[in-house]
Amino acid sequence: MFTYSRKAQYHETDKMGIIHHSNYIKWLEEARIAYMEHLGYGFDKVEQLGIVSPVAGISISYKTPVLFNETVDIQITLTRYSGVIQEVSYNIVKQGTGELCATAVSKHCYLKDGKVVNLKHEIPELDRLFASELVK
Amino acid sequence: MFTYSRKAQYHETDKMGIIHHSNYIKWLEEARIAYMEHLGYGFDKVEQLGIVSPVAGISISYKTPVLFNETVDIQITLTRYSGVIQEVSYNIVKQGTGELCATAVSKHCYLKDGKVVNLKHEIPELDRLFASELVK
Amino acid sequence: MFTYSRKAQYHETDKMGIIHHSNYIKWLEEARIAYMEHLGYGFDKVEQLGIVSPVAGISISYKTPVLFNETVDIQITLTRYSGVIQEVSYNIVKQGTGELCATAVSKHCYLKDGKVVNLKHEIPELDRLFASELVK
Amino acid sequence: MFTYSRKAQYHETDKMGIIHHSNYIKWLEEARIAYMEHLGYGFDKVEQLGIVSPVAGISISYKTPVLFNETVDIQITLTRYSGVIQEVSYNIVKQGTGELCATAVSKHCYLKDGKVVNLKHEIPELDRLFASELVK
Repeated sequence: MFTYSRKAQYHETDKMGIIHHSNYIKWLEEARIAYMEHLGYGFDKVEQLGIVSPVAGISISYKTPVLFNETVDIQITLTRYSGVIQEVSYNIVKQGTGELCATAVSKHCYLKDGKVVNLKHEIPELDRLFASELVK
Repeated sequence: MFTYSRKAQYHETDKMGIIHHSNYIKWLEEARIAYMEHLGYGFDKVEQLGIVSPVAGISISYKTPVLFNETVDIQITLTRYSGVIQEVSYNIVKQGTGELCATAVSKHCYLKDGKVVNLKHEIPELDRLFASELVK
Repeated sequence: MFTYSRKAQYHETDKMGIIHHSNYIKWLEEARIAYMEHLGYGFDKVEQLGIVSPVAGISISYKTPVLFNETVDIQITLTRYSGVIQEVSYNIVKQGTGELCATAVSKHCYLKDGKVVNLKHEIPELDRLFASELVK
Repeated sequence: MFTYSRKAQYHETDKMGIIHHSNYIKWLEEARIAYMEHLGYGFDKVEQLGIVSPVAGISISYKTPVLFNETVDIQITLTRYSGVIQEVSYNIVKQGTGELCATAVSKHCYLKDGKVVNLKHEIPELDRLFASELVK
């Protein structure tokens, strides 16, 4: 598990006085990208190879609202990985109180020239990193 | 079923050259709000009663990317409603081609002073509108 | 002058209960793009020629807050154009009341392969359209 | 001068492959809020007193695009302050190269119950902090 910390910004609030729910989707992406950097293979390196990784699906459950200026820990785990399909799970937890704010799962694939590729063949180095994460 | 049409904006694109996936979440909200206006009970009226409606969960599946300047039809249906819990389903379809871009489901409740309320008692007029939609 | 109308969305509000000021910058872009489409030369056609148009500067003055669900008219005028430099001016006005919400000016240039180009030579058709707008 | 550092996020890019210009406006706000926290009087404390601080105007000049995953330093200085009107100036500089990406100025006032207030009377502690910053 890797943890990405993030302060909730004023521009992310809405008129209910809480962080607008669409921003959590951006936070998940930030956490994924920080996670890959932490693993030692940044997402910018993936794109430099002409490979993109669109999001195939997201499922998120909102538990407790996050407020302006609060810091959350986004705990991220690779829960499924086959070289072709990748599933990432998240807990968003309030720093300090440990309160659970949201849980989420996202699914991803990797594309080259518009076609799904297998990371085993396309980026063996990244494939090994992901595979070893799954074991943990 | 109600349809909300929306042009994909330049500021919604990302470096993959497609609409960033977080924006779809905003589009779903826009569609819900337009839908309530279409039903004859705008969301601003709900909030004027001191009632807010946070999103409890969203599940979205991305099928085909939407590109800058394309117009999508967001087809919205009320698929579950009990007065307390509400589930809304969406198909995002490309105008012209009819191509399916995404499907989604969102869950909602209604809160007054931080407590879940039943629309049957709190806003009978809106409750009847939602209930009649469910029958269709 | 061309007018682009836009409904203020819930996801654009902030905890002050008004539209967050950063969203106006997005609205200006939407208005510019709608304006070019109205002139008969869409911005997507510009990009298809390998030409991009980054924003060189924006100056905006906020007068009256825009609230959720209000519709604004963004009145857009080309106030300077030389083929190389372009200046666009905006009034954001509340529909119904006519109240002035903001005034803004933006500056733009056109780039091909990272170098500034003159639309007179690169896209004569668009150059003529812009030049004729300036006369009005 | 206070410096706020910020990594440019994937969801902030646009189809030109650069950070969309509207995001800089959000970064300025983040820098202002971090700056007040650094001064020892957080913006949340201001709002707890029933005082809000809408943006009256922004002027920004874009010099060099910021790219995904680059980190910028936002150097922020209080350049004018009277208790009633406040002007803040910014340089956005690329970390590592020191390249200037943008310069900006924003203007602010403070409102209570919809009326402009003088911080000298409303929040003397914050007034002294701002006044002492101006001297530097």
